[in-house]
Amino acid sequence: MKRYISLTILGIIGLILQSCGNQDSASKKSGAITSNAAERVYVAPGEHDEYYAFLSGGYSGNLTVYGLPSGRMLKEIPVFSQFPTNGYGYSEETAPMLNTSFGMVPWGDAHHPDISQTNGELDGRWIFINENNTPRIARISLETFETEEIIEIPHSAGNHSSAYVTENSEYIVAGTRFSIPYPQEDMAIDKMKGNFKGPLTFIAINDEGRMNIDFQLDMPGFNYDLSHPGRGDSHGWFFFTTYNTEEAHTMQEVNASQNDKDFIAAINWKKIQQYVKDGGGEEIEAKYAHNVFDHHTQTATSTIEKKVLRVDPRKVEDAVFFMPTPKSPHGCDVDPSGEYIVGNGKLSTNLTVHSFSKMLKAIENKDFDGDAYGIPILNFESTLAGTVKEGGLGPLHTEFDGKGNAYTTFFISSEVVKWNLKTFEVLDRQPSYYSVGHLMIPGGNSRKPFGKYMISLNKITKDRYLPTGPELEHSAQLFDISGDKMELLLDFPTHGEPHYAAGIPAEIIKSKSRKIYRLDENEHKYAAKQESETRMERDGNEVHIYLTTVRSHFSPDNLEGIKVGDKVYFHVTNLEQDFDVPHGFAMIGANTSELLIMPGQTKTIIWEPKREGVWPFYCTDFCSALHQEMQGYIRVSGKNANVPLKWTLDDEEIK
Amino acid sequence: MKRYISLTILGIIGLILQSCGNQDSASKKSGAITSNAAERVYVAPGEHDEYYAFLSGGYSGNLTVYGLPSGRMLKEIPVFSQFPTNGYGYSEETAPMLNTSFGMVPWGDAHHPDISQTNGELDGRWIFINENNTPRIARISLETFETEEIIEIPHSAGNHSSAYVTENSEYIVAGTRFSIPYPQEDMAIDKMKGNFKGPLTFIAINDEGRMNIDFQLDMPGFNYDLSHPGRGDSHGWFFFTTYNTEEAHTMQEVNASQNDKDFIAAINWKKIQQYVKDGGGEEIEAKYAHNVFDHHTQTATSTIEKKVLRVDPRKVEDAVFFMPTPKSPHGCDVDPSGEYIVGNGKLSTNLTVHSFSKMLKAIENKDFDGDAYGIPILNFESTLAGTVKEGGLGPLHTEFDGKGNAYTTFFISSEVVKWNLKTFEVLDRQPSYYSVGHLMIPGGNSRKPFGKYMISLNKITKDRYLPTGPELEHSAQLFDISGDKMELLLDFPTHGEPHYAAGIPAEIIKSKSRKIYRLDENEHKYAAKQESETRMERDGNEVHIYLTTVRSHFSPDNLEGIKVGDKVYFHVTNLEQDFDVPHGFAMIGANTSELLIMPGQTKTIIWEPKREGVWPFYCTDFCSALHQEMQGYIRVSGKNANVPLKWTLDDEEIK
Repeated sequence: MKRYISLTILGIIGLILQSCGNQDSASKKSGAITSNAAERVYVAPGEHDEYYAFLSGGYSGNLTVYGLPSGRMLKEIPVFSQFPTNGYGYSEETAPMLNTSFGMVPWGDAHHPDISQTNGELDGRWIFINENNTPRIARISLETFETEEIIEIPHSAGNHSSAYVTENSEYIVAGTRFSIPYPQEDMAIDKMKGNFKGPLTFIAINDEGRMNIDFQLDMPGFNYDLSHPGRGDSHGWFFFTTYNTEEAHTMQEVNASQNDKDFIAAINWKKIQQYVKDGGGEEIEAKYAHNVFDHHTQTATSTIEKKVLRVDPRKVEDAVFFMPTPKSPHGCDVDPSGEYIVGNGKLSTNLTVHSFSKMLKAIENKDFDGDAYGIPILNFESTLAGTVKEGGLGPLHTEFDGKGNAYTTFFISSEVVKWNLKTFEVLDRQPSYYSVGHLMIPGGNSRKPFGKYMISLNKITKDRYLPTGPELEHSAQLFDISGDKMELLLDFPTHGEPHYAAGIPAEIIKSKSRKIYRLDENEHKYAAKQESETRMERDGNEVHIYLTTVRSHFSPDNLEGIKVGDKVYFHVTNLEQDFDVPHGFAMIGANTSELLIMPGQTKTIIWEPKREGVWPFYCTDFCSALHQEMQGYIRVSGKNANVPLKWTLDDEEIK
Repeated sequence: MKRYISLTILGIIGLILQSCGNQDSASKKSGAITSNAAERVYVAPGEHDEYYAFLSGGYSGNLTVYGLPSGRMLKEIPVFSQFPTNGYGYSEETAPMLNTSFGMVPWGDAHHPDISQTNGELDGRWIFINENNTPRIARISLETFETEEIIEIPHSAGNHSSAYVTENSEYIVAGTRFSIPYPQEDMAIDKMKGNFKGPLTFIAINDEGRMNIDFQLDMPGFNYDLSHPGRGDSHGWFFFTTYNTEEAHTMQEVNASQNDKDFIAAINWKKIQQYVKDGGGEEIEAKYAHNVFDHHTQTATSTIEKKVLRVDPRKVEDAVFFMPTPKSPHGCDVDPSGEYIVGNGKLSTNLTVHSFSKMLKAIENKDFDGDAYGIPILNFESTLAGTVKEGGLGPLHTEFDGKGNAYTTFFISSEVVKWNLKTFEVLDRQPSYYSVGHLMIPGGNSRKPFGKYMISLNKITKDRYLPTGPELEHSAQLFDISGDKMELLLDFPTHGEPHYAAGIPAEIIKSKSRKIYRLDENEHKYAAKQESETRMERDGNEVHIYLTTVRSHFSPDNLEGIKVGDKVYFHVTNLEQDFDVPHGFAMIGANTSELLIMPGQTKTIIWEPKREGVWPFYCTDFCSALHQEMQGYIRVSGKNANVPLKWTLDDEEIK
């Protein structure tokens, strides 16, 4: 068999990567740190950070919340993965959030968060994030910081070019990274070319944030990498980078790197939206889960949907075009004005900047250079606004500061480069340690960036922190970009692998943050809203226990009548109505997680007792000076015992 | 029924807690922050922190690693909980780590980390941590930062007074927090008093760190809260705090707070060790899991053990005594000399300090004040070294700086108090925001503390950071304790709820940190150590796929012959041998997590394909400039199809 350890095409990249891996001496340097960096990142006890930064957790499946400039992680929000810490994905209320057409999937690969927009500006209502493995998109409330909705994307594989939102949050997109048969069918893998497809899914968002698949565009079987909506004049368009336009089915590191140019797909979604409204498209079979968490019932439901609308892009006039872009472009970034579309060709050194107005003109003039599966390819020169020359090696992603500048990451040469959007001149470059992937400027992909800070999200950590064995956290670096030159201020580790991030000034959302759930609004079917409602109910071998918590006891706290082989549901309602007074609930030997119950909430876990005895349960979150005393006992009798159900508090029956 | 919202005993506490909840104005203050605090906590990019701090994750079930003074979280080590991020508890190799006598338990409540010691000093070999819900103790390697061993504690409930290590790492202990029938039996809960027991388990540690239950001490049915080993002269003894000596079975927040004094149990484990060596004790039935991760096979095994040795403390002469200690004491802390045992009576204001030498004398003089279930109670005055008067409200936990000072947390009055170990005089007090639980000084519970920094682990967060909805992270505060007065430097959020922490100077462990696993030492049964060994093997409906990863492709990357209904094992070996080059592996629709595979490792997940088609798999950890191309396809045919197994790379068969 062939060996691929040293391939000509990758030789140079390999050498560069190797040198990056040996930056022992470089790592001792701090880069361009100003003398007062310490003070500029320090947030004194009792004071608050200036910005929220929402970092994707990558293979953690979650979304992490950091404060800037301190770099402190303020929270991890569970999204696509089970989260034992608070029972997400284990409790009866939240497990449906992880349901898919493949059944329960306890893990996801979270990639690109994006905050909802109004008029192209961050409005701080929701944040969306995509899942790359079992394709899904989630919506997280920025009032509760909880995942409220997850929709699966059918006929898709590797939902990478997501979850970007149009400028009035009309649509969110999900593209297929790995081309596949559409619909799926059993076929030989080497029959891929011409037979696999690349469906791009447009999900409509309503005023309450609810997602609904509007249509799927039946695109050629390329790999769709990243995307961005147009804004300003280009609002109504969406741009997707493609790679593997070679349609290689194997050894893509070589075979998908043959073409000098791949494409940016330009999609006029407003035209397609109208086409669909007018009855266009074809309804086809599909199978996908749509999971919604209801804050009234405090419970998620999962619905399996059966249909999706397929649109052939060739049937919608002047709606879809390809813009040639060198070479295997990754990021596809639109500047705040909407005029420039930056193609970050990851195997090229030059950055290609397309002009939206020139693109429109080229379309008008039918200035085509052939077609790909019937989709017109625009002439490269006709859409070209300019080129950023010799920016670096391996450009990946670009954001903007709202002051006429762009910032591009270069993975291979491991640096961030600032350049001028009008002249395409390089203005500054700073090394990143090591091998930066994406970067983030708060609002940096909207019409109104907040150009004070930039963070680079680095792919290789090595010696940046104290060693922690073979497995390391990833790492970010905070730069001050308010001046002419970027100033490195701080390194901070990141939890999981942040593929992208979204930042927002704290002022926009902090006052809306929810503190408790109101008990009088709790419509959970198994809630006990006062201690007098707590009880046990048997139905065959199922026993439902209605428990309450308040500092610092459970009601009831002595329970008898449970038998080996029963299926016991603990429904625990936290009666507290003060901020930051959660209670926890844990049961010895339960084959599930704990419950962490916020004030006013009801949560449920199942316990199947296996042995006779008297077993304790307790509060897992230190709630008061008498937290340690917050426990109860449950008596488990034999399968055929005749111990009646009995529930008491302080030896008195509860009525 | 009765209402317990306002109980006399708790009225004052309640009011204080309430005022603590309204510290809006207080929170604006930073406390005693010196002007150069920013510089003192700043660790410049490329530089390293001075100390490791290992914080228990509490209800996360994990151990988090922070750097001090920066407060940056460097890693989360999965211990007792499933960790989707790297597949811990999901992969075939690691799932056995979470096995128990109750079956797979995917969550734990991690409480108190303790670093192994030699001659009473931190030696940095391992860190141990206890699980409170389904009683267990884990050992984590400080070379690999991975959990290597978990032992379940039978006949136990609420393993809280753990995992503290004796001064030559001879023993680690596990006490029963919730008294229970011993052995378990079906009995009425209100028959608790006199019938429930409080077994204390002593686990021997061998030179390789392996744990083995040596004996269980059949103690009275009190609640055992915290513990500490003696050191120096008191080496050979172990001290445990008790509460609920009232043996209340219900409403403990009231009924377990009746006695003016509870006890510290003083246990001469050397005597019991000898007694056991001499054939003492009684072997009884037990059922507990012992799980060990083998770094050669890269695989964990779980063994169910069947016996344990029960020792009646009354049968070992002069081995076990009770020292009366006011009131519901929490921490039980021994100073570096071993002479002072501090009882932190959480419902008292005064701190009681016992003298070890006076205790020995009282034992010699049989200076008893009756007995509890046959165990002598020492006269309170006879063991008393002194009292720290009016330290604060709700003392919980004390550590030491090695310079003659002790630092005690007060939960209710929300402060840390520094006092002199000789005079028992209060020297300084600083507020903590809010409601501090434990604190940690690196080495602060050893013979050699490193008295530069102290962190307070606070139970209530409220407004300390930007709001993040109803559920908040917990919070720590870093103090400089090198001077006469404690100086607050920094607030930082903590992931999960740290009940305790262990700190160590970075110099002790950083040079030992493992960077990779050596491929030539990989003895995993399903490893493929070079691409030519990669293959597919069918055995009935089970298919084993031997895959390898190297930047940036899988071998093989085209696989055919899989059928709906198969059980597919992906065994993925990472051939890399460079530091920080993990690869990930994810399969669409798998009902499990991803795999994150360190260099030289083999990891396995199972996939049960449900639908025909051509499905992608890919690398989840950005590994090179061509990471995005690191993917493969697997063809799934119908249940009765005749597609033969076929595995290729670049269309060539692998031989």
